[in-house]
Amino acid sequence: MEPADSLTLRSLLEHQPVAALSTLHQGEPTGSMVPFALLPGGRGFIIHVSRLAAHTNDLLASPAVGLLVMAGPDGSIDPLALPRASIQGRARPLPPEDPAYAAARAAYLAKLPQSTGLFSIADFSLFLIEVRSVRHVAGFGRARSLTAEQFAEEFSA
Amino acid sequence: MEPADSLTLRSLLEHQPVAALSTLHQGEPTGSMVPFALLPGGRGFIIHVSRLAAHTNDLLASPAVGLLVMAGPDGSIDPLALPRASIQGRARPLPPEDPAYAAARAAYLAKLPQSTGLFSIADFSLFLIEVRSVRHVAGFGRARSLTAEQFAEEFSA
Repeated sequence: MEPADSLTLRSLLEHQPVAALSTLHQGEPTGSMVPFALLPGGRGFIIHVSRLAAHTNDLLASPAVGLLVMAGPDGSIDPLALPRASIQGRARPLPPEDPAYAAARAAYLAKLPQSTGLFSIADFSLFLIEVRSVRHVAGFGRARSLTAEQFAEEFSA
Repeated sequence: MEPADSLTLRSLLEHQPVAALSTLHQGEPTGSMVPFALLPGGRGFIIHVSRLAAHTNDLLASPAVGLLVMAGPDGSIDPLALPRASIQGRARPLPPEDPAYAAARAAYLAKLPQSTGLFSIADFSLFLIEVRSVRHVAGFGRARSLTAEQFAEEFSA
């Protein structure tokens, strides 16, 4: 791993506001957009979703999910070389009584302050996505796979 | 449907160079980035992928896929309101001898001319994603579902 790739990954995950969430819907993989935040130290990803949305029911029924974060398109970069990270993880509800709730909510709102109002809407709730593995493509010929431990190590540095 | 939403969908699909492809990988939904093009008349989506890539083996094993196209982040728009379209479809290989190959290749290269060189690399091949349904979110409170027929009708207009 080049140190530059670690910085690229951190920048991507800290600055992109939304990800593509892949869930299993009626037995088929499907994608939906979710705003997301990263927990300090790379301890997981936080999403805030509505129980009225299909993806929320999907991940309650089948917690294995994918989360793809892509750099915004840039006319000067060949689309195939756009930096992106594909996270494989497990989603679990994070109710207000969970010890991790306060830190998760704080991390989410620090990145997505526009969403403050949604925390008073009953059907929205936080989920933690625990990282199982990460595939990071920093550019052409710069792909690498990280275990959950390696990912956390990079972010705790 | 407002005519404005139809134009928004067309603009999104014609201008965004990449999508998040959701496939089933070892039984779990996973996301990867793919450049894509739309066939004329909304007759499907074209991707050009490597047999060395995990997503290609995934879709050969399990052709039900999701394709999520999102507008690029814009600091002035609440991330939750970003226009996006989630397509549910079926992927099938499009070898050079297929009657649809020439039109698919032309549509792909018209949008992604940077990829011309990849057509001479043996492990890359075209796949057609046939549309089964589309969920289009044009903004806050502007979500609609389209059948494959409705989608094609909008694009043939």
